[in-house]
Amino acid sequence: MRVSESSIRRLSLYLRLLEELSMRGAATVSSDVLARGVGTTSAQVRKDLSLFGSFGKRGLGYSVPALVGRLRDILGLERRYRVVVVGVGKMGSALIRYSGFAERGFRIASAYDVDPAIVGRRLNGVVVRDVQQLAGDLAREPADIAIIATPAEAAQEVAETLARAGVKAILNFAPVPLAVPQDVAVKHVNLALELEALSYALRNR
Amino acid sequence: MRVSESSIRRLSLYLRLLEELSMRGAATVSSDVLARGVGTTSAQVRKDLSLFGSFGKRGLGYSVPALVGRLRDILGLERRYRVVVVGVGKMGSALIRYSGFAERGFRIASAYDVDPAIVGRRLNGVVVRDVQQLAGDLAREPADIAIIATPAEAAQEVAETLARAGVKAILNFAPVPLAVPQDVAVKHVNLALELEALSYALRNR
Repeated sequence: MRVSESSIRRLSLYLRLLEELSMRGAATVSSDVLARGVGTTSAQVRKDLSLFGSFGKRGLGYSVPALVGRLRDILGLERRYRVVVVGVGKMGSALIRYSGFAERGFRIASAYDVDPAIVGRRLNGVVVRDVQQLAGDLAREPADIAIIATPAEAAQEVAETLARAGVKAILNFAPVPLAVPQDVAVKHVNLALELEALSYALRNR
Repeated sequence: MRVSESSIRRLSLYLRLLEELSMRGAATVSSDVLARGVGTTSAQVRKDLSLFGSFGKRGLGYSVPALVGRLRDILGLERRYRVVVVGVGKMGSALIRYSGFAERGFRIASAYDVDPAIVGRRLNGVVVRDVQQLAGDLAREPADIAIIATPAEAAQEVAETLARAGVKAILNFAPVPLAVPQDVAVKHVNLALELEALSYALRNR
C-alpha cells in the first residue's frame, strides 16, 4: 500500500496529540478533536485512519489507548532504532546531546568525524570515531538510521558509504540533496534554510 | 514581487554553495555548477537569479563574491536578527546551545519557560525568564523572530502573544499548526516527524 507523505505526517501529529490526551486521562476522542488538533478536517482524519483498518465506533469516537498503540505500530515506533551520526560539528554535537531522540526509541549508538581534533571526544556517552572506520563498523554492527551532519561537500560520499553498508534510512542536515539508491529513504532538515526563509519574509514585507 | 518558496530555498542553497566556493578561492561559477550542486537544472538557476536582476555574463558565468553579496542581501542576511526562544525543554535548550544560529546573524537574545524549575537557569549566556514576562519584555525590546519550542498544547497561545507583541516571523518546533495573522511568517521544523517518516519507511519496506 502506498500512503502519501502528508498522511504519514498527520499520523505522527495524531499520535502526538493522542499521547497528550492519554496523559490527561482521556479514554476516547472524536475525529473532530483530532482534526482541530492537527489543523485538518474530520473527514481527512477518518480517511487517514481508515487506510490502516477501522478504529472508531460511530458516535463513540476512537479509544485513545488503542489508537496510540495502533499508530505507534503503524509508524514503526514499537521497536528501538540504532542511529549513527556522521559529522560532529555544531549541528552534529547538538543532535547527539539532544535527549528527545532516545526518548522516542532512536538511540544514537555511534558518531563519526573526519577532524582529528574532534575524533576521540565523548558527547553524551558517545565517543566520536574516525569516519574512516564507518564502513567497517557498520559491517560488524549495522545501523537502522544515519544522521548526516557534515558540510555540504562531504555529504554525498558519506551517503554512498552508508548505502553500501546497508543503511536504509538517512536524516540529512547537510544543505545539499543526496543521490541514493531507491530503497534508501532520505529526509532533509535544514534549520538555516527555514531561518533564511523567515529573514527573506522580514526583508521583503 | 511574489517569489515561490522553492525559489527562496534554492537561493539559500546557492548561497551555501557559493560560500564554499568562495572559501576555496573560486572567482566565477557557471549556472551548471550551481545547478549540479543543488540538484536542479541550469535553466532553473538562471530563472531563479534573473528574478532579482541580471548577474551573469554569457560565457563567463557569475562572479562568486558579487553573487554571494547579492544573495545575502536578497535573503535579508546583511543584518542581525534578535531572536527569542519560548519553551526551554529538551529542544529549546538544544537550540539555545547551538551556535550555528549566531554565526549567521540570528542572535538568541532571551528565552522563556513556564516551569519554575527552568526559569532562572542560564544557558549559553541566556537567562531563562518567566513566560509571563514575554509580552512586557517584547513591548520594551521587540524581537524579529521567535522560536516556539513548547509542548503542542501551549504553542497557539504563545503564537498569539507573539503576534500581538509585533513579532512577524516564527520558527515553530511544536508539533502543531499555528493560526496567526497573515502578516506573520511561520516555518515549521519537526525532527520527530522526520524520524517517524523514516521509521515508517523502515517498517513498511
